[in-house]
Amino acid sequence: MASQPPFKKILIANRGEIALRVIRAARELGIQTVVVYSQPDEGSLPVLLADESVCVGPAASKDSYLNIPNILSAALMTGAEAIHPGYGFMAENPDFAEMCRDHGIIFIGPTPESMHALGSKAGGRQIAAASNVPTVPGTGVLESVEEALTAAKQIGYPVLLKASAGGGGRGQKIVRTQDELRTAFSQAQDEARLYFGDPALIMEKFIEEFRHVEVQVLGDGKGHVIHIGERDCSIQRRNQKLIEEAPSTLPQPLREEILSAGVRLAKYVNYAGAGTLEFIVDRDGNYYFMEMNTRIQVEHCVSEMISGIDLVRWQILIAAGYPLTLQQEDVKLQGHAIECRINAEDPKKDFRPSAGKIDNIHFAGGPGVRVDTHAYSGYVIPPHYDSLIGKLIVHAPDREWAIARMKRALEETVVEGVKTTIPLYIQIMDNPYYKRGAVLTNFLKTRMEM
Amino acid sequence: MASQPPFKKILIANRGEIALRVIRAARELGIQTVVVYSQPDEGSLPVLLADESVCVGPAASKDSYLNIPNILSAALMTGAEAIHPGYGFMAENPDFAEMCRDHGIIFIGPTPESMHALGSKAGGRQIAAASNVPTVPGTGVLESVEEALTAAKQIGYPVLLKASAGGGGRGQKIVRTQDELRTAFSQAQDEARLYFGDPALIMEKFIEEFRHVEVQVLGDGKGHVIHIGERDCSIQRRNQKLIEEAPSTLPQPLREEILSAGVRLAKYVNYAGAGTLEFIVDRDGNYYFMEMNTRIQVEHCVSEMISGIDLVRWQILIAAGYPLTLQQEDVKLQGHAIECRINAEDPKKDFRPSAGKIDNIHFAGGPGVRVDTHAYSGYVIPPHYDSLIGKLIVHAPDREWAIARMKRALEETVVEGVKTTIPLYIQIMDNPYYKRGAVLTNFLKTRMEM
Repeated sequence: MASQPPFKKILIANRGEIALRVIRAARELGIQTVVVYSQPDEGSLPVLLADESVCVGPAASKDSYLNIPNILSAALMTGAEAIHPGYGFMAENPDFAEMCRDHGIIFIGPTPESMHALGSKAGGRQIAAASNVPTVPGTGVLESVEEALTAAKQIGYPVLLKASAGGGGRGQKIVRTQDELRTAFSQAQDEARLYFGDPALIMEKFIEEFRHVEVQVLGDGKGHVIHIGERDCSIQRRNQKLIEEAPSTLPQPLREEILSAGVRLAKYVNYAGAGTLEFIVDRDGNYYFMEMNTRIQVEHCVSEMISGIDLVRWQILIAAGYPLTLQQEDVKLQGHAIECRINAEDPKKDFRPSAGKIDNIHFAGGPGVRVDTHAYSGYVIPPHYDSLIGKLIVHAPDREWAIARMKRALEETVVEGVKTTIPLYIQIMDNPYYKRGAVLTNFLKTRMEM
Repeated sequence: MASQPPFKKILIANRGEIALRVIRAARELGIQTVVVYSQPDEGSLPVLLADESVCVGPAASKDSYLNIPNILSAALMTGAEAIHPGYGFMAENPDFAEMCRDHGIIFIGPTPESMHALGSKAGGRQIAAASNVPTVPGTGVLESVEEALTAAKQIGYPVLLKASAGGGGRGQKIVRTQDELRTAFSQAQDEARLYFGDPALIMEKFIEEFRHVEVQVLGDGKGHVIHIGERDCSIQRRNQKLIEEAPSTLPQPLREEILSAGVRLAKYVNYAGAGTLEFIVDRDGNYYFMEMNTRIQVEHCVSEMISGIDLVRWQILIAAGYPLTLQQEDVKLQGHAIECRINAEDPKKDFRPSAGKIDNIHFAGGPGVRVDTHAYSGYVIPPHYDSLIGKLIVHAPDREWAIARMKRALEETVVEGVKTTIPLYIQIMDNPYYKRGAVLTNFLKTRMEM
């Protein structure tokens, strides 16, 4: 760390655990923090812990966490030099990044140009092709349902409709027939507009059973890019990740191929900051680049645990113009890490959100356990946002031990007042397929009695 | 980890956070746990989390946690193959270890013979001399106050009276004059009898200002001993440690000399299990062996953080006869770790214990933070035992960052209902002497406005 903080003050344009994560990184660097919040988040932990906080609107995200004028005003008013967008909300909005620049505020993330190029799935596919990284058969942005129908015929059903600007599985639709596609197209456009402010859709061949493997990279924006290993995020429900781990259980040659493909692609765009390249790995060991998330991800913690590298700190340092002094050979991956996303949902009722008051919450501790949560006893989970109330992350010398550690940590964790995904995760830790690392994205449907 | 657990079931003869620590290690090894408890500890977290629990008596330690017949009965009754004593209570009682052996129960710790030899300060001094490790000028067991007076004259005042069977600073008395010694001698005997069941006293030259540096070792009982680095535990109040860190800030050649002195001494006794060799390092860089603690210590976590080695797991494995497969070159120490002991005490009122109900407790989280605590919201701290309610441990790539991380973690931690040492620790993290690593055991008196 330099003796002077890289910034005096930054604004955090997010909520929940990731806002807290950024506050932690900032505070350790000696940086003052401002968080913005919506009315129902007034009593939330990030608001309580930040040095300053500014209410930017009512509950609805579009009026608060997506309210660009209010967020920029808050930054200017408080004298924040930079904005960290977290994930979701403004994190992958190049217009926002550009407006930050126009107002003399540093956006902690890649350039708007990179975000434009990579943030859309269509652009991502072009860049992948140019950097010789394989992609799933698919299309560019589809202008009409007719174009979609023609494309689906060529690719072959089932196909996947995706928001070009999207991420995290939101607004994705599996379509198996022409009739389904006719209905789904406008629905998917509506959802894409709602979630990402952009109705543009792309289509891909839908691969039913695969591993979701992603490469974490850090770049300096001047051509130096390193990877911090890969993560396996195959355990999902409705395309939303539930459990992630690092490293993956892929064979070593395949791991290395995917890692170098990730670095190659990120280098091609002179990537700056932290980013994630998501890959599909099918049963035959073919891998396809899906998309690059030009931001920090929920599951970044498992990479931090195995590498000892603080990714959010590096995001801030790189944005402040510090050189990325890490070389690939400095990245030493040790042991195995697993993250369980603790969602306030009822896994027995199709993951129905369980908002409300947490009467009592007590997290696990002890060796190799990390807890990232904004929840506390008495916290009322607002129904307006996602259901993530915390992340339980463990690290151990090997995968078998990490699973045993996660199981004991889950068993120690108490959440009263709302339903959570914890009981499901305890079952998964005992599942023989999970234990031997044989997990595809359809794991919950095919390997668990849900 | 072997596919079979090293034991089917172990009993934990302790309470509080260390009982929980042992449960965690056992559970990760697939071992069932039994905890014993006193009546006021009935609702405590270890009791709630262990597979079985047995009440061994009322509140007073002598009737419960020191009640050997009841503890042994509990082990036999529940079919526990081994007993983990934690620290304090039975941990350094060779008679208990011997009785375990007589009853066919494995004591998780060194042999009764090692404990006899090393557990007493007088014996420790002899062994140090034999293994060429320097000790502070001092005596063997003093038979009478007259013998003490003569010895003090030779050594030179001030001198320190210590329980030969003691540990952790309890029952130590600084004596500056002949008159003081006459009064202090029988008081110290009484305290030694009360705390350790043995009135035997030794005397040492009292070195007013020094660093407390200790070496963590693991041995297999067959001559193979490795160190897991050293810890600096100089921040103390009334000879009780408050903050510990690893590694120390000693110059590298001195560190290495002390580490190899520690290993040499432990090898001399064919030490088995986890142990700690405590050293005094004076202002001139002279070091003197004080004593060996033949058990796990409160502050073992900082060594675990910088080494990635699970010391309690190794205690169990070694006791079960597993080979100590670690070689010295496998021990790679990385970064810097700090532990703050969160005591329910009022540092502004001379650390007066603050027992009672914890209305609300919320610990820090995020990267590099470990929490070991048996406390939870609603927990009533019994007044009968020590005031430790939890340990906050951080790990970071370097000491400066570790201090920043600890400060932010302390600031995140909320304890309502009882006073704690947290506000003091926040001040210490800002103290310029602490920051530059210039800390002696009189730090609180000389460098803080208490």
